[in-house]
Amino acid sequence: GYSQKVMEHFMNPHNVGVIEDADGYGKVGNPVCGDIMEIFIKVKDDRIEDIKFRTFGCGSAIATSSMVTDMARGKTLDEAMTITRNDVATELDGLPPRKMHCSNLAADALHEAIKDYRSRQ
Amino acid sequence: GYSQKVMEHFMNPHNVGVIEDADGYGKVGNPVCGDIMEIFIKVKDDRIEDIKFRTFGCGSAIATSSMVTDMARGKTLDEAMTITRNDVATELDGLPPRKMHCSNLAADALHEAIKDYRSRQ
Ligand code: FES
Repeated sequence: GYSQKVMEHFMNPHNVGVIEDADGYGKVGNPVCGDIMEIFIKVKDDRIEDIKFRTFGCGSAIATSSMVTDMARGKTLDEAMTITRNDVATELDGLPPRKMHCSNLAADALHEAIKDYRSRQ
Repeated sequence: GYSQKVMEHFMNPHNVGVIEDADGYGKVGNPVCGDIMEIFIKVKDDRIEDIKFRTFGCGSAIATSSMVTDMARGKTLDEAMTITRNDVATELDGLPPRKMHCSNLAADALHEAIKDYRSRQ
């Protein structure tokens, strides 16, 4: 089954949406299930000032994205780059083994968004 | 991308929930992504009088379940058994090829629920 935290973030996800004038944008596809995840960031003084995600992915993908966007908000870009897939699953008190592939999307898309921001400077 | 119909059923899915005193219950797992789909039916005079689904699955799984429950409601059990995975995808004006595996869940769970009902008679 799913942890209480996963259920909470699935039922009431944080930071859902798009940022039209994003400073960085990351998009990754999940090779297992075909789902796609998009993350948008606004950066100020090298910190993530705003962050939103959008996905058609499953409940676990939604919960991990909700969590990773919460974790990244307010962090410096260097700090946010160190957030791993496992960190997110741990913060959610775990995911069922068959759903671990879903948790990769969120952290990967975050890192892509930061790389995109840096490549624009 | 996704068809207009898929987006509509994803944003506003029909027949979401559980039926506590269901006459038939079907549960299937998706071997590709690990998602689970549950369908509950109430049967009267050999017809599907009420039907609900629940899933933690992705947007495509939600859209196909919303569609298959709409299609099955009011049908006889024999008629509902003939609804195929492809029928559901066709009614939705198609699904991206990488997401076809998601559409299997809904039709399979419907058939399981009908078999469960029949096994109880
Ligand atoms: S099954 Fe695709 S992201 Fe979870």
